[in-house]
Amino acid sequence: MAIKAFRSSILHFKEDAQAEYFDDGILLVDSETGTVQEVVDAKDQSSELAAKLDGVEITAYENKIIMPGFIDTHIHYPQVDVIASYGEQLLDWLNNYTFPTELQFKDPEFARETADFFLNELIKNGTTTALVFGTVFKESVDAFFEASAKLNTRMICGKVMMNRNAPDGLCDDVQSSFDDTQTLIDTWHGTGRQLYAVTPRFAITSTGEQLEKAGELMKNNPGVYMQTHLSENKAEIAFVKELFPERSSYLDVYDHYGLLGPRSVFAHGVHLDETDFKRLSETQSSISFCPTSNLFLGSGLFDLEATKTFNVPVSVATDVGGGTSFSMLQTLNEAYKICQLKDYSLDARQAFYMMTLGNAKTLQLDDKIGNFESGKEADFVVVDLESTPLMQRKQSKCKTLDEVLFSLMMLGDDRAISETYVAAKQVYKK
Amino acid sequence: MAIKAFRSSILHFKEDAQAEYFDDGILLVDSETGTVQEVVDAKDQSSELAAKLDGVEITAYENKIIMPGFIDTHIHYPQVDVIASYGEQLLDWLNNYTFPTELQFKDPEFARETADFFLNELIKNGTTTALVFGTVFKESVDAFFEASAKLNTRMICGKVMMNRNAPDGLCDDVQSSFDDTQTLIDTWHGTGRQLYAVTPRFAITSTGEQLEKAGELMKNNPGVYMQTHLSENKAEIAFVKELFPERSSYLDVYDHYGLLGPRSVFAHGVHLDETDFKRLSETQSSISFCPTSNLFLGSGLFDLEATKTFNVPVSVATDVGGGTSFSMLQTLNEAYKICQLKDYSLDARQAFYMMTLGNAKTLQLDDKIGNFESGKEADFVVVDLESTPLMQRKQSKCKTLDEVLFSLMMLGDDRAISETYVAAKQVYKK
Repeated sequence: MAIKAFRSSILHFKEDAQAEYFDDGILLVDSETGTVQEVVDAKDQSSELAAKLDGVEITAYENKIIMPGFIDTHIHYPQVDVIASYGEQLLDWLNNYTFPTELQFKDPEFARETADFFLNELIKNGTTTALVFGTVFKESVDAFFEASAKLNTRMICGKVMMNRNAPDGLCDDVQSSFDDTQTLIDTWHGTGRQLYAVTPRFAITSTGEQLEKAGELMKNNPGVYMQTHLSENKAEIAFVKELFPERSSYLDVYDHYGLLGPRSVFAHGVHLDETDFKRLSETQSSISFCPTSNLFLGSGLFDLEATKTFNVPVSVATDVGGGTSFSMLQTLNEAYKICQLKDYSLDARQAFYMMTLGNAKTLQLDDKIGNFESGKEADFVVVDLESTPLMQRKQSKCKTLDEVLFSLMMLGDDRAISETYVAAKQVYKK
Repeated sequence: MAIKAFRSSILHFKEDAQAEYFDDGILLVDSETGTVQEVVDAKDQSSELAAKLDGVEITAYENKIIMPGFIDTHIHYPQVDVIASYGEQLLDWLNNYTFPTELQFKDPEFARETADFFLNELIKNGTTTALVFGTVFKESVDAFFEASAKLNTRMICGKVMMNRNAPDGLCDDVQSSFDDTQTLIDTWHGTGRQLYAVTPRFAITSTGEQLEKAGELMKNNPGVYMQTHLSENKAEIAFVKELFPERSSYLDVYDHYGLLGPRSVFAHGVHLDETDFKRLSETQSSISFCPTSNLFLGSGLFDLEATKTFNVPVSVATDVGGGTSFSMLQTLNEAYKICQLKDYSLDARQAFYMMTLGNAKTLQLDDKIGNFESGKEADFVVVDLESTPLMQRKQSKCKTLDEVLFSLMMLGDDRAISETYVAAKQVYKK
């Protein structure tokens, strides 16, 4: 064992979603196994604690909060360069910006360079785990996992399955898609910290046959994830209806092919009805709420309250490149705004819970990451509460933890991330 | 004359709202008078230009664009500390956060310290002119103008007139409000670069008698401005209807008391009907669109397209502390998003026009600021196109000026402001 200690304010959430906050705490990690040992109160004067800390190097911080690494449940690594592309809603935006860009990822070198840049943006923003879309090219997913494995981040990624309604060069076919996916699962799922997600882009770009194969992959490979898009945009929904007239709803298309379940993550779900919510709840499939993207593409206002009402697992995500920021803090800022427009107040504790343990739960990873329970993987961020003069001034006026956290999510950005640790190792320092 | 030259890419807008862009231009300013001399193409090989530049010190920039200083048409300086206050819509937010905070501004020292901080945030974000709410306390407006005069920024500010529906300590009365306003106009309107705005907070906090006095002040003092709030929130609108049952609409309250006209700026106007738009157009009263605030307070989605349809002058503004950022770039980001939700694309040229010459026009200040026409006041910003690794990467992929500007408004923040000049003098450098 090689114990390291980090002394600071510390915040994480317990299994019951309650915040545990240490104004002056010590996070003890084992740098050999990369896991959390425990969090203790630094004011504890016991000889027991003194013995534990004997000979241990302590890194101490001021005006910082240590939190679990942030988790992003929906993001496209090949869309780094698509971010901030002007003027379109979903379908045109895909055709005009995204598809041409994704064609470049046939080149493994370009893919790897982009993956490195992308992962660097994530850790710079405090995100240590993400559920990530690759492109249709198998090599682009190898490149991503190689980059992530090198950094030792816990990432979930998958090759896009897409065999229609996209440029020829971007389409696979039913068999190659199935085979490539299986090869990638065999190579990467469970290799180090990497995990695989079966990734049909969305119902528009896959035939029923391909979706059926996606279901088969899920059945054949217990433990892998499924990620796709659902009910983001009205024109998209109408197109799905045209393509699958025999299905009762957009969600029902995925349901029919066996793609619902607790490891299935559906991005967006902006336009769902009661039947959809009930079915998502029954199957414990989760929705990924992508605020900056829903606003940027004019998709609509997500109904977070409805997911609570119907007990649908829900996470929060950036959706870069439809989203406009890699920062989960800025994402919470716009999540709050969307909720305000829907007459629902997203409080700071719920927001910080969501992007740590809450998101881990929707990814079925709460046994490994999301808080500082003993034995979990030691992914954490050192958050600077005073990274700008405005934040410094605002923080000096905050009287409660709720105020501190709310100011942070409204005013913070990548500058608020002072250091990022992955499996107890520092991977980023501002 | 003391001519200084700044060589860089240069962008400004002409009177017809067309962009004039120099990939490699030179901005010549007279640092004695603080005015623009001219903008020339640096590639011009003429002896005439060579003669002009003879002996002139040239400051040269790379990967920067020089633009006119940004203009913010609605902001509250006493609300710096109210920014990012949790969980309320307009009326509760005023009662729970804003009013208690504004009480502190009875203390001129606190007011001055806040004004200095506030102005520093503005110039740090590239904003060189703003239309600013003070508090009900006369001294708070003196403090603001003193701070602005020292910096030599062109600012418009006014004492809030408010004689009901607010805490006792924050209410003035009809006569004192009238007298204090007149004294402030006499002291500050046209003193150096400072200008005055008659400032009834909104119809809820002023009696008809006070609004009548506001109209009288406007008549007695040609050239002063009027700023107030209009139709921001549905509960607010209902309350106004209750208070002024004899008036046909919220706007009609202000109209009745003679408060409409080309120097009148109405913040928000989220919930207006055709009659309102027509009346605003007839009187050439302007609306100030405050995107981050409208989202943060859940007020609603502004209809920018309708203002075009009805030829209503419209500007764009931060509305700190209801707004969540001092940055006009971040404000344009969310303006774009609101327009997307309303199925209207706010293109980058229109957006950059709005926050420079467009906003100057709605303030009737386009003879003085807003672009680099010869003789105008030399307020300008040096914008860094590569202030973050993401912006650097994105800019390297941009092929057109439109792409460059759109990326800047979607990804930029205060870091994109490299230097700010006021009347040809540097007041901020990153």
